[in-house]
Amino acid sequence: MNGRGHSGLFLSFEGIDGSGKSTQARMLAERLSADGMTALLTREPGGSPGAEEIRALVLQGDPDRWSPETELLLFTAARRDHMERTIRPALTRGEVVICDRFADSTRLYQGRQGLRDTVDKLHNLMIGMEPDLTIILDMDPEAGLSRAKARATAEERFEDFGIALQLQMRAGFLALSEEFPARIRVIDGNRRPEYVAADIHATVMEALDARP
Amino acid sequence: MNGRGHSGLFLSFEGIDGSGKSTQARMLAERLSADGMTALLTREPGGSPGAEEIRALVLQGDPDRWSPETELLLFTAARRDHMERTIRPALTRGEVVICDRFADSTRLYQGRQGLRDTVDKLHNLMIGMEPDLTIILDMDPEAGLSRAKARATAEERFEDFGIALQLQMRAGFLALSEEFPARIRVIDGNRRPEYVAADIHATVMEALDARP
Ligand SMILES: Nc1ncnc2c1ncn2[C@@H]1O[C@H](COP(=O)(O)OP(=O)(O)OP(=O)(O)O)[C@@H](O)[C@H]1O
Ligand SMILES: Nc1ncnc2c1ncn2[C@@H]1O[C@H](COP(=O)(O)OP(=O)(O)OP(=O)(O)O)[C@@H](O)[C@H]1O
Ligand SMILES: [Mg+2]
Ligand SMILES: [Mg+2]
Repeated sequence: MNGRGHSGLFLSFEGIDGSGKSTQARMLAERLSADGMTALLTREPGGSPGAEEIRALVLQGDPDRWSPETELLLFTAARRDHMERTIRPALTRGEVVICDRFADSTRLYQGRQGLRDTVDKLHNLMIGMEPDLTIILDMDPEAGLSRAKARATAEERFEDFGIALQLQMRAGFLALSEEFPARIRVIDGNRRPEYVAADIHATVMEALDARP
Repeated sequence: MNGRGHSGLFLSFEGIDGSGKSTQARMLAERLSADGMTALLTREPGGSPGAEEIRALVLQGDPDRWSPETELLLFTAARRDHMERTIRPALTRGEVVICDRFADSTRLYQGRQGLRDTVDKLHNLMIGMEPDLTIILDMDPEAGLSRAKARATAEERFEDFGIALQLQMRAGFLALSEEFPARIRVIDGNRRPEYVAADIHATVMEALDARP
């Protein structure tokens, strides 16, 4: 138990499309489980039954059907539900929560739409929680793009697969790492998955040891 | 055109369950139309296609499926969509917008759950607009209760039909009228509909004349 009222550890993965977040989140969960820990792998938007329903409502239909502000409110509602129903209970049970994207994605994606200040105020008002550690998978935007294209699914209206956007997003994630140096670690994702996973595992073990 | 950037008038109806909001909103819209004005009758939660979908998501299923905070975020998302897609465009066209419930209902219902301060901050951040005139239909809670019961539909998990709640809500609406005296008018709803409608019409004509 620590000053945060729980003994768990809350981790998030961030980075541009195709940077390997989902791959590394899964590999980390498997590694921690093999080490005998209880790891909960979850994702945003979504991660709880209610949040998945909100996700479906936001992502289905015409891309213009919601304004940036309405979309931000819906994603924040989903995050609140996810936090209350999935993340906090697992942290209270002492588990390691591994979240594939969290609030930093909102800071960047909704921030691009001129809403960064609103995102922060809304986050402080309605969420008020940050990961203990955020791993940003940094990678060459061209390479990320071709990885993401190879694996594209139907539900991807948020990803316009443009190199200009990928470059902008990469710069945005690196800027976030400078804004939140205590919480964010940047890890080179341009390598074979096993090498990336080994770096991440070492960083996470340090964070586990550093828990109060 | 006035300092608010439009020449329309934004009216809301508030009051306890069964106080006659929907009846009077409809009667007013008919009367203004007969007078040659363009009146848009709308309601909350809902009032635009997206907001009606959010309404359905909130109101369907187990009453405990959303926490008060998540529910507040979903209703605010619905209000944002309603405001952008229905209310503001009509005001810009110079119409009279008549809204059956608006933010005061949220102040009271979510306020009861200890969220009044959060409601206000969220409203200021994401909505930032009040009606020009709000009519609170005041009425005897017992009488409102029996009216509402007579007309109950399936989608009414928000109304527990208790007299204690109705009394508390009535006091809450009267307190709001003291908090916002420039915007809110209390009208006695314990009379025949035609008498109530005549009072409302007079009050609205005054507000129309007072437009800058
Ligand atoms: N280190 C790596 N080297 C080569 N390919 C990889 C590596 N990591 C992941 N991939 C592959 O690249 C694709 C994208 O990886 P993944 O889905 O993990 O990325 P992501 O960051 O979750 O993407 P998105 O943002 O689109 O969800 C997948 O096909 C995956 O198998
Ligand atoms: N002045 C009145 N006198 C008698 N009955 C009325 C009066 N106004 C409305 N009613 C009847 O009372 C019932 C409730 O009225 P109405 O639906 O307009 O109230 P409401 O405030 O919209 O209620 P709710 O909060 O449940 O939506 C309806 O059956 C309506 O016909
Ligand atoms: Mg992924
Ligand atoms: Mg009604």
